[in-house]
Amino acid sequence: MTLPPPESIHARQPNGQRWPVAILAATGAVGQAFIRTLKDHPWFEIAEVAASERSVGKTYMEAAKWMEGELSQDVGELVLTACDPAQVKSPIVFSALDADVATVTEAAFARAGRVVFSNAKSYRMEPDVPLVIPEVNGEHLALLAHQRKTRGWTGAIITNANCSTTVVAAALAPLHEKFGVNKVFVATMQAVSGAGYPGVPSLDILGNVVPYIGDEEPKIERELAKMLGKFENDAIVHAPMIVTAHTNRVAVENGHTAVLSIGFDRKPTVEEAIETLRNWKGYAPSLGLPTSPEHVVFVHDGADQPQPRRHAMMGRGMTTSIGRVRECKLLDLRMVAMSHNVIRGAAGGSVLNAEVLVSMGFLSETGVQ
Amino acid sequence: MTLPPPESIHARQPNGQRWPVAILAATGAVGQAFIRTLKDHPWFEIAEVAASERSVGKTYMEAAKWMEGELSQDVGELVLTACDPAQVKSPIVFSALDADVATVTEAAFARAGRVVFSNAKSYRMEPDVPLVIPEVNGEHLALLAHQRKTRGWTGAIITNANCSTTVVAAALAPLHEKFGVNKVFVATMQAVSGAGYPGVPSLDILGNVVPYIGDEEPKIERELAKMLGKFENDAIVHAPMIVTAHTNRVAVENGHTAVLSIGFDRKPTVEEAIETLRNWKGYAPSLGLPTSPEHVVFVHDGADQPQPRRHAMMGRGMTTSIGRVRECKLLDLRMVAMSHNVIRGAAGGSVLNAEVLVSMGFLSETGVQ
Amino acid sequence: MTLPPPESIHARQPNGQRWPVAILAATGAVGQAFIRTLKDHPWFEIAEVAASERSVGKTYMEAAKWMEGELSQDVGELVLTACDPAQVKSPIVFSALDADVATVTEAAFARAGRVVFSNAKSYRMEPDVPLVIPEVNGEHLALLAHQRKTRGWTGAIITNANCSTTVVAAALAPLHEKFGVNKVFVATMQAVSGAGYPGVPSLDILGNVVPYIGDEEPKIERELAKMLGKFENDAIVHAPMIVTAHTNRVAVENGHTAVLSIGFDRKPTVEEAIETLRNWKGYAPSLGLPTSPEHVVFVHDGADQPQPRRHAMMGRGMTTSIGRVRECKLLDLRMVAMSHNVIRGAAGGSVLNAEVLVSMGFLSETGVQ
Amino acid sequence: MTLPPPESIHARQPNGQRWPVAILAATGAVGQAFIRTLKDHPWFEIAEVAASERSVGKTYMEAAKWMEGELSQDVGELVLTACDPAQVKSPIVFSALDADVATVTEAAFARAGRVVFSNAKSYRMEPDVPLVIPEVNGEHLALLAHQRKTRGWTGAIITNANCSTTVVAAALAPLHEKFGVNKVFVATMQAVSGAGYPGVPSLDILGNVVPYIGDEEPKIERELAKMLGKFENDAIVHAPMIVTAHTNRVAVENGHTAVLSIGFDRKPTVEEAIETLRNWKGYAPSLGLPTSPEHVVFVHDGADQPQPRRHAMMGRGMTTSIGRVRECKLLDLRMVAMSHNVIRGAAGGSVLNAEVLVSMGFLSETGVQ
Repeated sequence: MTLPPPESIHARQPNGQRWPVAILAATGAVGQAFIRTLKDHPWFEIAEVAASERSVGKTYMEAAKWMEGELSQDVGELVLTACDPAQVKSPIVFSALDADVATVTEAAFARAGRVVFSNAKSYRMEPDVPLVIPEVNGEHLALLAHQRKTRGWTGAIITNANCSTTVVAAALAPLHEKFGVNKVFVATMQAVSGAGYPGVPSLDILGNVVPYIGDEEPKIERELAKMLGKFENDAIVHAPMIVTAHTNRVAVENGHTAVLSIGFDRKPTVEEAIETLRNWKGYAPSLGLPTSPEHVVFVHDGADQPQPRRHAMMGRGMTTSIGRVRECKLLDLRMVAMSHNVIRGAAGGSVLNAEVLVSMGFLSETGVQ
Repeated sequence: MTLPPPESIHARQPNGQRWPVAILAATGAVGQAFIRTLKDHPWFEIAEVAASERSVGKTYMEAAKWMEGELSQDVGELVLTACDPAQVKSPIVFSALDADVATVTEAAFARAGRVVFSNAKSYRMEPDVPLVIPEVNGEHLALLAHQRKTRGWTGAIITNANCSTTVVAAALAPLHEKFGVNKVFVATMQAVSGAGYPGVPSLDILGNVVPYIGDEEPKIERELAKMLGKFENDAIVHAPMIVTAHTNRVAVENGHTAVLSIGFDRKPTVEEAIETLRNWKGYAPSLGLPTSPEHVVFVHDGADQPQPRRHAMMGRGMTTSIGRVRECKLLDLRMVAMSHNVIRGAAGGSVLNAEVLVSMGFLSETGVQ
Repeated sequence: MTLPPPESIHARQPNGQRWPVAILAATGAVGQAFIRTLKDHPWFEIAEVAASERSVGKTYMEAAKWMEGELSQDVGELVLTACDPAQVKSPIVFSALDADVATVTEAAFARAGRVVFSNAKSYRMEPDVPLVIPEVNGEHLALLAHQRKTRGWTGAIITNANCSTTVVAAALAPLHEKFGVNKVFVATMQAVSGAGYPGVPSLDILGNVVPYIGDEEPKIERELAKMLGKFENDAIVHAPMIVTAHTNRVAVENGHTAVLSIGFDRKPTVEEAIETLRNWKGYAPSLGLPTSPEHVVFVHDGADQPQPRRHAMMGRGMTTSIGRVRECKLLDLRMVAMSHNVIRGAAGGSVLNAEVLVSMGFLSETGVQ
Repeated sequence: MTLPPPESIHARQPNGQRWPVAILAATGAVGQAFIRTLKDHPWFEIAEVAASERSVGKTYMEAAKWMEGELSQDVGELVLTACDPAQVKSPIVFSALDADVATVTEAAFARAGRVVFSNAKSYRMEPDVPLVIPEVNGEHLALLAHQRKTRGWTGAIITNANCSTTVVAAALAPLHEKFGVNKVFVATMQAVSGAGYPGVPSLDILGNVVPYIGDEEPKIERELAKMLGKFENDAIVHAPMIVTAHTNRVAVENGHTAVLSIGFDRKPTVEEAIETLRNWKGYAPSLGLPTSPEHVVFVHDGADQPQPRRHAMMGRGMTTSIGRVRECKLLDLRMVAMSHNVIRGAAGGSVLNAEVLVSMGFLSETGVQ
């Protein structure tokens, strides 16, 4: 797969219609975020919603217990089907499935020729599956050719990083590209929406901090090196960096904050780091798409910024906010990074992945329709 | 000053009465915590309360805007005086003054022969002023002899650490003593009560994290080395350690949480570290006093512990809770520490300092009465 | 059953030992509150803890997911049994069972000769079951003689009111006694602990109000009239009052607040109402017991009081706080009432009920041992 | 002033440009809400921002401590002037001034020929000043002719209701119009943003309810009758209703919730009430304007709705959400109402008022330019 010349971009189906898309696990927190993200999308139309057996046959409006904001009537009246490629026909599939179900179900969809955008951890670390934040490592999408060959799938699986890895990876990518990040301390303060619904009991989080999130620290430690790695010879060469993570749950609805101490191959000054972050664009084909933010990363000036409640919705939830870039006593630099865990870290990230692939003609090329 | 034999402890005045004590800045958050801590104290009796001009002449009950819990009638009816040694007669003075006022006022009290227990940063880093958590570095109280000589004071000033330094110092002390801590990465999640009242506006903290607390990071970085230092030849030799801090405010009422990555001169195993923490007692004369907790540090077993709402009140707010001791990818070990910022980190710490000095005969010896 | 003369009070077993007590559903939120309330109780000793099948065989410490504060080692090591009178031998049984299980299980215990203090709604409205806040309507305990006759039980069931009814009933009782309450508007703002654990998902309550609590409004409307009713001829004559309730869940951990507009048979002035509330003592045999608060109701002076975080723990959680007594435009008076929903409204209320019965010789009299 | 025929609507200035508008007290919470509300407004352009002396001369970006979301560069670079009609030239003035300053300053602007949209209580109850929610009582704007005559102003003052009155008035208006509301019991749960910034200290609201908001209950009780009154003979005849209010502050960022018991001249059934609410449109000239919501009131079906976090932003913050319409035991019906206090209850309400007047040709007619 090579990049098509811009004029050949086919953002819509050959017939000029929007692409029909399906959402798996549509009633959960990430599923609902897909519905909000895809509202009025110029290229994609929510054609199908699927959920667990318990909800099959209900309309979406009946089954979705919690809905933040307004639901369009069209989507509200869709009837939920099972998460089964025999019943879900859309070529593009956004999956909010949990890992325990995703392993089997997402593969079934890929085998059936669908392009699956996954938010589960099941396939993230597979060598032939791209783990992508488009601006950071969109080049890794080229792994799909290898994936199809290896797996014999007519469809494909593309994964999102874990939401806490996403904020760290987007914040480090510009600096890594230029100065070589080799050591990372990260401590996170993560929103409750990251645990889904019902998720975190209120008695656990009101007036409290829970200094532990199951399996979150290993995810950050392993996913980061893959995402910041290079695509070479049909494979990802992981970045050689040591990462140590401390993950915490705090009483925030949306927006994961990460404080970072960073060591570099070549230490930048604070000014160089800020300038690099400000000038960085990221992978060109990911820019200017419907879900692309104006600023992929945004460096705040305020001494007490970024903050989740104030800045999580920057760039409609797709901007990664950075602040407090300063010297570190132990490594080279310290800084704070924050982004919206449900949008940038899940649904919005998947949709942007889909936009990149569609704009590159991936769906037409592979005969997926 | 040498330690008296146990039988010579004079916890009360020579006349058998409780020591009269005064509280400066009595109506603020820390001032109120002194009142709660000293309620029914066997050795000390709140004889005087002082505050800023605005409150002078009012009864305590009238002036204290916020009071958590119940106020005894005796204290409620005390009339507030000015923070002036000409008007405040008690030999023992607990000061909750802010740094801008503390510099002049606390010195005036010390000059006037009072023993001042300070919570301000004004004198903490002065070479002749002890900065003390009794169990951690009670030996530093011996600096007072030097202080009096240098300053010509008949009284004295003893300081508490900043509340966020306190939780870190108490957690590291047992390990430092045995394995030599030389590197510390610390990220804090601090309670709003640390900022006093009115302090943090609710619009800044509901659903939010503020990744900055003014001057907090330098305080931790410099105070820690002094507190974990050694008393030698009438001076404190700071511990040779590199500390880098990230301080954050979260929506918690009480209890500062710190996540730590630690480097050692001699790396302990996780088991050795836990055993060391569990067996540690701390400076002997600080144990068994009225405000001493049963456990100075307590290592929790739960994977998601400690947590401020569940554990801040352990040991009536004086225990430092520790959990999640585990390997660190970058340094040697990671762990979580948490303690009550207003009790252990402020009022309770000062009262325990006073108890140590009183139990050692310091007040009688110096003629302070 | 008539009141024994004070000198005949047998607060302990005839052998001088504390009464062994059992807690059913001991690991839940109310169960844990029983454990905290009974810690160091002079008359009762936690001898047995029981829970659902899932937890049977585990120690209490293993099974209790959430524990606020410290657990004594003795209780932590108790092994959980099934909620079955064949396995639980204690004569006094504190039940935190949910209504669906309570109906059958509590009756089984009463039939087996145990005195059951229930927090479920199952038996509250039964004509022969007392629904008691001791200070408010301790006289209703006399219904137990009738209950035993009717049911043929050698034991008994005594119920607590719902936690939101409790705060309203305690606040109205003094006024009802003197001025005859006939109309009540009540709007509640209830703590999340009222829903148990895991209970309310954090995504439902952070930055939010949920203006609905299942079945809560009918409970208040029907239980209040029974509790404020009179015991006459072996039956409770419900108070003739019209009650309309609006119940809401807010982001508070502990403490239910109720705002009230009240109509009277004979309208008191604001001053008369306050004086009546201040002078009221309640049912004499309920006073001076181990769990009795110093103030059954306490009228606050502050214009913005009472508040759950500041006042829920007054009287170790057993005082009902009242404030803002003022004229009402529509009915006669308005006021605010607040009490601790888990202590006064559940576990502490049950324990006080038990203390009243024990102090009256009920257990000895009935041969329950 | 009579309504112009639709074709004569001059939503823009005669020269086709957008109307320049000024914001007084632009840096506070309501001032910032004006900036967000007016972003990309088709008729109005933020030309001037004014604030207290302390901020004069700074750019808006420098002076605004808290900004939720993104600030356009144009507005960020505006330099703050004093709140003085000699320095502020725009014909349309949105005032977020506090009452203590508003009394003098707003009159000065009106005298100087400006049309002032006020959020202060200063003029709300003046007989010649309209207190308007456009859809509810837009007819009251006709009072402006009388105001100008009485006061001799070339400009005018139009006021918004208090934010808690707004939610109640909008919810009751449809029912009052048809069934005659004569009694209202209302209990509110109000967001902290209603108190501005810094406003409510976090120690007062985390895990807490404050059952008192200064002067809030009288405001609701008196403003409601005026707003639901009739315009007759150049005056407002207040609606004859008895209102009793209980106002409370809760830990919610945005969105005031009110629970209501309502008495009617002619009692509707629950179904009639819901149908009336659903079919109501409100004052015709207020519909279809840039800030008008699709639904002025929206009746939710969910048993636990409306909720501030889920529904405050409906209709871009301009919809009043209603739910739980049901029988009342004491009066006729109960229900829950909720709207965004900063948008519908303040800035958005003022902007909609301005849109109505502009669309009716009021500015052109009166020579205000």
